Amino acid sequence: MSAVREALDSVRLVDHHCHGTVTADLGREAFESLITEGQAWPGVSPFDSPVGVAVRRHCAPLLGLPRHAPPAQYLARRSELGWREVQRRFLRATGTDVFCVDTGYVPGQITTPGDIAEAAGGTAYEVVRLEGVAESVGTAGVEADAYADAFRTAALEAVRRPGVVAVKSVAAYRTGFCLDPARPSDAEVTEAARHWLVRGGRLDDPVLVRHLLWTAVDLGLPLQLHTGFGDDDIRLHRADPALLTDWLHLTAGTIPVLLLHCWPYQRQAAYLAAVFQQVYLDVGLTLHYVGPARAGAVLAEALEITPFRKLLYSSDAYGVPEFHHLGALAFRQGLAGLLQERVDADELALPDALRIARWAGRDNALRVYRLQTDGQEDD
Amino acid sequence: MSAVREALDSVRLVDHHCHGTVTADLGREAFESLITEGQAWPGVSPFDSPVGVAVRRHCAPLLGLPRHAPPAQYLARRSELGWREVQRRFLRATGTDVFCVDTGYVPGQITTPGDIAEAAGGTAYEVVRLEGVAESVGTAGVEADAYADAFRTAALEAVRRPGVVAVKSVAAYRTGFCLDPARPSDAEVTEAARHWLVRGGRLDDPVLVRHLLWTAVDLGLPLQLHTGFGDDDIRLHRADPALLTDWLHLTAGTIPVLLLHCWPYQRQAAYLAAVFQQVYLDVGLTLHYVGPARAGAVLAEALEITPFRKLLYSSDAYGVPEFHHLGALAFRQGLAGLLQERVDADELALPDALRIARWAGRDNALRVYRLQTDGQEDD
Amino acid sequence: MSAVREALDSVRLVDHHCHGTVTADLGREAFESLITEGQAWPGVSPFDSPVGVAVRRHCAPLLGLPRHAPPAQYLARRSELGWREVQRRFLRATGTDVFCVDTGYVPGQITTPGDIAEAAGGTAYEVVRLEGVAESVGTAGVEADAYADAFRTAALEAVRRPGVVAVKSVAAYRTGFCLDPARPSDAEVTEAARHWLVRGGRLDDPVLVRHLLWTAVDLGLPLQLHTGFGDDDIRLHRADPALLTDWLHLTAGTIPVLLLHCWPYQRQAAYLAAVFQQVYLDVGLTLHYVGPARAGAVLAEALEITPFRKLLYSSDAYGVPEFHHLGALAFRQGLAGLLQERVDADELALPDALRIARWAGRDNALRVYRLQTDGQEDD
Repeated sequence: MSAVREALDSVRLVDHHCHGTVTADLGREAFESLITEGQAWPGVSPFDSPVGVAVRRHCAPLLGLPRHAPPAQYLARRSELGWREVQRRFLRATGTDVFCVDTGYVPGQITTPGDIAEAAGGTAYEVVRLEGVAESVGTAGVEADAYADAFRTAALEAVRRPGVVAVKSVAAYRTGFCLDPARPSDAEVTEAARHWLVRGGRLDDPVLVRHLLWTAVDLGLPLQLHTGFGDDDIRLHRADPALLTDWLHLTAGTIPVLLLHCWPYQRQAAYLAAVFQQVYLDVGLTLHYVGPARAGAVLAEALEITPFRKLLYSSDAYGVPEFHHLGALAFRQGLAGLLQERVDADELALPDALRIARWAGRDNALRVYRLQTDGQEDD
Repeated sequence: MSAVREALDSVRLVDHHCHGTVTADLGREAFESLITEGQAWPGVSPFDSPVGVAVRRHCAPLLGLPRHAPPAQYLARRSELGWREVQRRFLRATGTDVFCVDTGYVPGQITTPGDIAEAAGGTAYEVVRLEGVAESVGTAGVEADAYADAFRTAALEAVRRPGVVAVKSVAAYRTGFCLDPARPSDAEVTEAARHWLVRGGRLDDPVLVRHLLWTAVDLGLPLQLHTGFGDDDIRLHRADPALLTDWLHLTAGTIPVLLLHCWPYQRQAAYLAAVFQQVYLDVGLTLHYVGPARAGAVLAEALEITPFRKLLYSSDAYGVPEFHHLGALAFRQGLAGLLQERVDADELALPDALRIARWAGRDNALRVYRLQTDGQEDD
Repeated sequence: MSAVREALDSVRLVDHHCHGTVTADLGREAFESLITEGQAWPGVSPFDSPVGVAVRRHCAPLLGLPRHAPPAQYLARRSELGWREVQRRFLRATGTDVFCVDTGYVPGQITTPGDIAEAAGGTAYEVVRLEGVAESVGTAGVEADAYADAFRTAALEAVRRPGVVAVKSVAAYRTGFCLDPARPSDAEVTEAARHWLVRGGRLDDPVLVRHLLWTAVDLGLPLQLHTGFGDDDIRLHRADPALLTDWLHLTAGTIPVLLLHCWPYQRQAAYLAAVFQQVYLDVGLTLHYVGPARAGAVLAEALEITPFRKLLYSSDAYGVPEFHHLGALAFRQGLAGLLQERVDADELALPDALRIARWAGRDNALRVYRLQTDGQEDD
């Protein structure tokens, strides 16, 4: 094992953006629907995809199975162990100290930040999804001209709860980033709220989405932004983070902005991280979907011009703890591979490689979120 | 030779999208103009490009010349053998069982599907280019309010001919994909047809292009869509397949949609194939233009998240049979290289690699186009 | 050392687009602000980035320091030697015969083309930045209806000065390329000038930017166009060179157009170079920012379909001569690496590799700019 890999394997990660996992034993259909951003279509098993191959290769051994175990065997063994034990094994294997958990996407019963912390033997913080807060305000009932205040109040309450370290927006899913970057006026917000409150449903009005992003600025916490790929609800070309440039100019000097996922726009995200002080990026979600076989290639693009203080680690795992494990593994393996290659070519000094590994895996997140840890310290 | 390469070399390919070749002996100028998406400019020989290098390296030996033979020698030998023998050699060398031939682009005299089948010792099916059908209807003369019916009738007649397995659209060349995704109303179509029928020329009215795409849905056959690069008639940024997302939502559950070429948007195409049941992709055209030296790199991006049931092989060869050969070779070499690398790194089990190779090279196409073959069966 | 690398190392380069360097000794802050397209932010040293690592690795030895010397040591040694000696060492190390120097970006005191030529022991030509010419005309005072003539006259005067070989536009920074491609009418230009001359400031009116690009066509010299990334003043998605397609159609048969930088749109630029006779590209700026560790990967994408007569070398170095050195080094190392790899795989014949290396490093630029040299001749 290379020196860099060894060092990266010993870094206690900060997973600055992830989700809970389903609190139930999963049949084949349920499991398959959780390991794809699409669905389990007839004749096209999600196991027959890069992430499926990665699950069989890298997750099976943690269940006591041979590498590349077939899906049926994998799922049988998974059921035999039960979801709690499966979760425990995968979360422990990640070597993660700190999880920042987005608690805003809960279509079914999933684990809480507390559950994750306990299972992993780490600490969990919470990330508040602002669209969820806004929609709760709408559902609870409010006059259009009181919406802005009510949303702000609710958001402030949400972020003041203990353990909340950041907010998140899924504007990419709602309108994309081709938005007027300016803060909307009170009158504009009231008018937009009037229509939305009647119409109901999810917050997808462009004025209200802009207002939400500006409210995030007022809250003062780091803002996580979904960018790039996701499920079929995304319009990929409108989730290109470069479209945020005008807004980033207007909000310079305020809050840190963390570009999540980014693929296939990791170079565009790198550009923003290189020229805007407040911008950071990760390639979470991508790491497990492309698998360890390609994580290094994607990381290499993401790092082409990114300052080493600006890359963070996240798994963006959701639904199954296999993804927490694969994310961590693909990150360690991919980053170590590219750093070691540079060390071997004498393009990078080993101490610098070790520093970069530790920054990306841990210290950059500790710094952005101002987290204290008992263990390894930021240097 | 690696195990995967050996296996891939023995797969009888299905080339699900290609064209005929010129039925004449070619002088230097004519040949050069056929091996570039640009033209043969003074002082810039198409031989001095990635595809030109690949022709000299990989095609010369099939004409009995040394590898890397100079262009003059290559062309002299080609003339000596005559176009029929040259075609026979290259088509046989592809190891292709089935060709789906787009018969809609015929600026000069080229081989028919029957000619291709005979020369290659395989089977050929036909792909109907819908713009050609629409333009024939226009040229034949029709009232504006009868255009929609006349086009539909002509298209139905065209696809009911024996051997037709798919339709194709070059909407990417005409308007690009920044289109209103909705089916246009009868009144809109009539109004648009009124102007187009007077103006004449190629079908490039946005309403009529939308109508054409929706007519494809009604026809019920798989639809091949040119996406990404081509000649200078393309506006590349409007040929990004991600722009089709809204239309794919509206047409979900209807026909298979096959994204052709895709480069440089192969990752965007992969996203669509991963989240839409009906979407498939290939990197035809790209394979021979980038050549075997880069085909593996492009395939690796195309496969980052693509389900293995969703990648197809096509050469998109046009004009010279060298491109059928180069496409097949670059596909086999590129895909084998990346799969073998993963097998060697124990990221992929060998039987899975062999299955993926066979699916992409053959079985996926057989399934999408519902083709029967006497030889190797889909499993 | 590989045969291709050896050959490339001996090519006397033509750096077809670069800038001068600061004529002063630099403290840490000043130096750091010059080695990033962002700024030196608290806690995020530009040394902790790919380019910073490359400076320490590849520049330190030329100052007599060990590879990977720490920043403080590097800067101390740099000051000790003085900026003139530092410049001399780095410029000599580039092995550059000819520099085409953009003299239009001069926020502070920087070296002139003459200074560069002398320090490097080569020849320097001048590239006239047209926005600067237009802004001088505006500042000098002119009636709106005389603006077009005054600008043309000033531009003609500027390009008739001895040593001027090209013009350049930074339209990418001003409006981006989502412009009406047509030549604006006199009335439109007058109307736009009326507003701009009152408003003052930089030339960022879309009509006047279009007019500037068309004036470049009239001047008849090669036009260098900034595309792709730069500082935070860019809107990256509007600097995609594919957006120039309509304008390239309208201006076909007139002047050569040189797409500079291009990253992350190097594939889009390659497409344009493949289908438009007048289009050329480089990956300057990118080369030193990604560093030798990734220059090969970026060049490989840039060359996927680019005719070998269409790739040029530039450093786009600005401010510090380290960038001239890193650009040349990353180009030689990156291009040699990818060509040698193809030679080793027998995908490319060695004589062809040597020819491509020489064309890209030198001959293509000599031809486009019609330069005479005493030394090695174009073949």
